[in-house]
Amino acid sequence: MISVSLFGAGKVAKNLARIILENPEVELVQWFNKNPERLKQYQNTVDVVDNLSALKPVDVYILAIKDDAIAEFSSELPFKNRLVVHTSGSVNIHDLDRKLRRGVFYPLQTFSEESNLKPDEIPICLEALEKDDYKLLMKFSDALGFTPYKISTEQRQTLHLSAVFVNNFVNQLYRIAHEISDAKKIDFNILKPLIFETSKKISRMSPYQAQTGPAIRGDKKTMKKHLKLIEDKEHKKIYELMTHSIKTTHGR
Amino acid sequence: MISVSLFGAGKVAKNLARIILENPEVELVQWFNKNPERLKQYQNTVDVVDNLSALKPVDVYILAIKDDAIAEFSSELPFKNRLVVHTSGSVNIHDLDRKLRRGVFYPLQTFSEESNLKPDEIPICLEALEKDDYKLLMKFSDALGFTPYKISTEQRQTLHLSAVFVNNFVNQLYRIAHEISDAKKIDFNILKPLIFETSKKISRMSPYQAQTGPAIRGDKKTMKKHLKLIEDKEHKKIYELMTHSIKTTHGR
Repeated sequence: MISVSLFGAGKVAKNLARIILENPEVELVQWFNKNPERLKQYQNTVDVVDNLSALKPVDVYILAIKDDAIAEFSSELPFKNRLVVHTSGSVNIHDLDRKLRRGVFYPLQTFSEESNLKPDEIPICLEALEKDDYKLLMKFSDALGFTPYKISTEQRQTLHLSAVFVNNFVNQLYRIAHEISDAKKIDFNILKPLIFETSKKISRMSPYQAQTGPAIRGDKKTMKKHLKLIEDKEHKKIYELMTHSIKTTHGR
Repeated sequence: MISVSLFGAGKVAKNLARIILENPEVELVQWFNKNPERLKQYQNTVDVVDNLSALKPVDVYILAIKDDAIAEFSSELPFKNRLVVHTSGSVNIHDLDRKLRRGVFYPLQTFSEESNLKPDEIPICLEALEKDDYKLLMKFSDALGFTPYKISTEQRQTLHLSAVFVNNFVNQLYRIAHEISDAKKIDFNILKPLIFETSKKISRMSPYQAQTGPAIRGDKKTMKKHLKLIEDKEHKKIYELMTHSIKTTHGR
């Protein structure tokens, strides 16, 4: 049995708690938040605490708190030589206080409060300063059914950047398509099967191989038509820049 | 029983043929291509023809040929007053020769030769000049299990543009993430669950509601870190432009 305590009340903390609570091999001993009101709904299930001095010894302390708070908060922890991990994509492992055994447990996913992601849909970027701690984190990930990857701080920061491209920026392209089709009274639902298939396609081939459309075909007539159709200046810029990027990738 | 003939040997034609051949309510009477060699593998299943004069009367002729070829090819058809539809997202319905009963049957999807999309994953944009022809196309779509939408030429051209955003441009963002992570020897597979979840999320909420990340949070520190990490100038430009677009959408 691996024992853990959680810190924070955001989406990452709540999704980790949900998965840990469903699993018989891992015990959630305590859940800390400065404002315990935000964890009210869990008070009957978990020992919710708001006082650092109430913390019990556990195998792993998981800080699912804001990036900017990690360094200072870790220095306030009233113990040393225990394993403390943060869950951030961009914070350096060395930002954790050196009195602690330090590690990173970064879930590379996008969470919403109601998301019901299964553990095998959540890749975990693991890092630890000590070999034994790394092994413990591996055991912990395995027990929960996550897919763990050994990822250095530098690699993790690159992954965090990549995630902005494939999640935030991709979602913004969905938003732009929503705006463009709304303006012509088109039901956005009609685009959803294409959106799903575009993402599924890369499980069968690389994004390089999956590319289609006017840019890669060099179909100037269609691109001209499209640019004429776009009313918003920024959308036009995005069309031109993404088209150019596709041409660069495919040597056109 | 609805009878149809197909024209063309590309991905759209092949996927339509696959779905029609699996369906007992629709008969694929003939399949025309100027170069019948490209349809060799179907010669035992369908009457493959390369001569326009061999065409038999059917309920619907489906031109799944190149956009630029549609107008001229439709004028070469050796009959009139029969229902002919094209499958293009951008060609005007009036580009079909006026001697014909004209319609559009545009599948809003991305196809690969090996794609095994089910009909209910393929929305169809329907258009016809005559009410009875529209009804027949509806009946045809229903029989095959497609989801038909009544879409005007103007709306269809806007959808074609939107599809470039949610398919070609999104795929290029995947490609950029692939390049960025490859450069740090990171397995691209680690990003796939995030890619799938990002697309699935919009079945539960709008892209506007789904947005997260440094741009919408106004997290300047992280954005600065990211820009420093990007080596390619064009990727940097895309980061800046997409970030600005998110800020514009969310009034930051």
